[in-house]
Amino acid sequence: MRKILVIGAGKSTAVLIKYFQDKSVSENLHITIGDISLDVAKKLVKNHKNTKAILLDVFDDASREHAIKDADIVVSMLPARFHIEVAKDCLRLGKSMVTASYVSDEMQELDEEVRKKGLVFMNEIGVDPGIDHMSAMQVIDRIRSQGGKMILFESFTGGLVAPESDTNLWNYKFTWNPRNVVIAGQGGAAEFLQEGSRKYIPYHKLFRRTEFLEINEYGRFEAYANRNSLKYQKLYGLEDVNTLYRGTMRRVGFSRAWNTFVQLGMTDDEYTISNSEEMSYRDFTNCFLAYSPTDSVELKLRHYLKIDQDDIMWDKLLELDLFNPNKKVGISNGTPAQILQKILMDNWSLDEGDKDMIVMYHKFGYELNGKRKQIDATMVTIGEDQVYTAMARTVGLPVAIATVRILNKQITRTGVQIPIHKEVYDPILKELEDFDIRFNEHECTYMGYNPDGVKG
Amino acid sequence: MRKILVIGAGKSTAVLIKYFQDKSVSENLHITIGDISLDVAKKLVKNHKNTKAILLDVFDDASREHAIKDADIVVSMLPARFHIEVAKDCLRLGKSMVTASYVSDEMQELDEEVRKKGLVFMNEIGVDPGIDHMSAMQVIDRIRSQGGKMILFESFTGGLVAPESDTNLWNYKFTWNPRNVVIAGQGGAAEFLQEGSRKYIPYHKLFRRTEFLEINEYGRFEAYANRNSLKYQKLYGLEDVNTLYRGTMRRVGFSRAWNTFVQLGMTDDEYTISNSEEMSYRDFTNCFLAYSPTDSVELKLRHYLKIDQDDIMWDKLLELDLFNPNKKVGISNGTPAQILQKILMDNWSLDEGDKDMIVMYHKFGYELNGKRKQIDATMVTIGEDQVYTAMARTVGLPVAIATVRILNKQITRTGVQIPIHKEVYDPILKELEDFDIRFNEHECTYMGYNPDGVKG
Repeated sequence: MRKILVIGAGKSTAVLIKYFQDKSVSENLHITIGDISLDVAKKLVKNHKNTKAILLDVFDDASREHAIKDADIVVSMLPARFHIEVAKDCLRLGKSMVTASYVSDEMQELDEEVRKKGLVFMNEIGVDPGIDHMSAMQVIDRIRSQGGKMILFESFTGGLVAPESDTNLWNYKFTWNPRNVVIAGQGGAAEFLQEGSRKYIPYHKLFRRTEFLEINEYGRFEAYANRNSLKYQKLYGLEDVNTLYRGTMRRVGFSRAWNTFVQLGMTDDEYTISNSEEMSYRDFTNCFLAYSPTDSVELKLRHYLKIDQDDIMWDKLLELDLFNPNKKVGISNGTPAQILQKILMDNWSLDEGDKDMIVMYHKFGYELNGKRKQIDATMVTIGEDQVYTAMARTVGLPVAIATVRILNKQITRTGVQIPIHKEVYDPILKELEDFDIRFNEHECTYMGYNPDGVKG
Repeated sequence: MRKILVIGAGKSTAVLIKYFQDKSVSENLHITIGDISLDVAKKLVKNHKNTKAILLDVFDDASREHAIKDADIVVSMLPARFHIEVAKDCLRLGKSMVTASYVSDEMQELDEEVRKKGLVFMNEIGVDPGIDHMSAMQVIDRIRSQGGKMILFESFTGGLVAPESDTNLWNYKFTWNPRNVVIAGQGGAAEFLQEGSRKYIPYHKLFRRTEFLEINEYGRFEAYANRNSLKYQKLYGLEDVNTLYRGTMRRVGFSRAWNTFVQLGMTDDEYTISNSEEMSYRDFTNCFLAYSPTDSVELKLRHYLKIDQDDIMWDKLLELDLFNPNKKVGISNGTPAQILQKILMDNWSLDEGDKDMIVMYHKFGYELNGKRKQIDATMVTIGEDQVYTAMARTVGLPVAIATVRILNKQITRTGVQIPIHKEVYDPILKELEDFDIRFNEHECTYMGYNPDGVKG
């Protein structure tokens, strides 16, 4: 039997384990699930005969080494910052490994030694990063193989709530880490390329610079710019494109309302508010508004941010109970971002039975035989339930498929890598279609960057 | 003769040296000016017989020690971060010292040893910090000595251009370090107290939360909040006030127009723009606006920031030549803030003969005999020329006066300190009046924090 060690029994792991278990006979797999909580790991075993759970503290060198030594391949589903401990052991003990996380500098440094040992360290093979890389490179490589020259690439991903569970005015619920949503876009200006020019959007304007995207049968979405759209320019071979843009998708109107929090300063995570514990939601909101002897928090906010009486944005704020004088913040010395997260979690948590949805949208502009063309590719996938969520499936399945393919020596390129090569992405994307994760492509008129379709 | 060593022959030093020279006979003073440029130091000597210039590199331990050993008191006019080297020598060699800079943590740590040696390390005795401390504490202590209880303190300072030299639409020229103006307010939310509530303003709203202030004969000003209004709460003994606010003064309309740069992201100092050298001013402006195949940079900006056709703010931008396609940025890989500074320096540098102006405005609210009262105190001083500027005078004179008073043992309190004690500030403020630096006080109706004077 080939032994797979999965470290970390977090949200996406259930899907991953199920994939391995379903293939355990045909592929001759034995699965070990290691987690700092043995109970959490045990839950994923489900009496499967070729699966066992073990206690594994990634910072306990002896038990970590012991578990890795015993495996043929290691999947690390730990938080990204913990991968490096596992990676160093894998390198020393001669095991390949798979993660869904961004390649850290520390991980990248191992590349040469990983190659020397003939190992595969596959990273960024979840959904974003992961399916985005694979689905983009598949089309880009096809365009190139036809003799086309890429001139535009825009790519958008969103983790959202499924239409059937979309029950609030924001058309949004937390389907993943709420903290990442609250602080999204912070840490520097967003940088991208539009028609040959570098463009920059400061954080406080990010949610007012969204663009609309239409997906067949799912209607209209919007997207705000990711911080660094140029990160993969070289890896994708897009040094000569005119337009390069990566963004995050939301339902229409989300960003404009979210901008309220940004403008007020409620997403700031850099200072704490003393005595926040006893504050009401109303007090919290009032922290960001000037004192007035006469005027209500409501009118002060409306006036400050120029929110008209008939603006639905206002109702979005009311829905969150931002003006409630009785609900207590209940977090001592919280940062504004922590307090806002608490308020949002009251409202945006998934209800039982709620399903999530992953959406992805790529635009490929290219020149072929002297003509400018465009292909748009979209993917929408909806979760089955709150275990086999769309997020868990789109993260867990590519990781699982890649793991088995590495075991089977169907992926042979060695080194620290991401899934941008045809021999990697083609079969994985093919197999994902069996799980109803597929892209729809359509050709459209190339307009360059011109969201309003203006003819000059 | 008593020997004064002045280290650093920067902008404020000329005024300081002249004060010492004018008193050199009556006070029996010998002045040594040490600077890293002997030429710069020599210029300040002006053939005065009791003044000499020396070459002094503050990082050359031997020459620094030698100069300090030979002095009776040391004035450090170096940039703030260099004081600590001087301070450590002064402590070891038993010399008192004076600076106009904020007390750093390193400086504060010397306090106990400075006391033990019976030395005076006087800091924050320029204009802001300096004259603000002294003038505020004089009124606060007087109110308290009458049995009053402080309930409100607001304090505003501005370094501006004198009315007779105020020739541009911004009513602003650089009279001090331009970089500090460009990055003013960055690094965190502004925090202050209004009627018992902590209030926070994020950077991107700072220049839209100004308040107006009127100074007799000088008209209307505005002020935006400083980052930490609460810094001196304890030192001033204002733990129980309801309102505590410190701000920076500008002429009316400056902040609203400055907000354009903040909103665009032009004040960002955290990333560099590659190939900025060959960019035109117009290209630079266009970096912060979406690409359009049809529309002008001008209209894109007007639309983005909602600047109406009849808004004078627009003319302020035109005055800076922000849309000029021919003027080159000329800075390679500059940050937006560096490039903006360059553009502003084209326009806001002092012309020959231009004079500067320092304005200060304090509001003191208090309860006395069951009644709520308010005193406003204002100070305006205008520079004589471009050497004896208002800034140089208001920084240099208090430093100089304090130095002589320490020499004369008229200031005897030992330790690392700032000028908040009556025995220090009273005589210095008195002497400053001889130089036409004086405060006008008037009583006014106490309204609490209520800038519009609304009656509830």
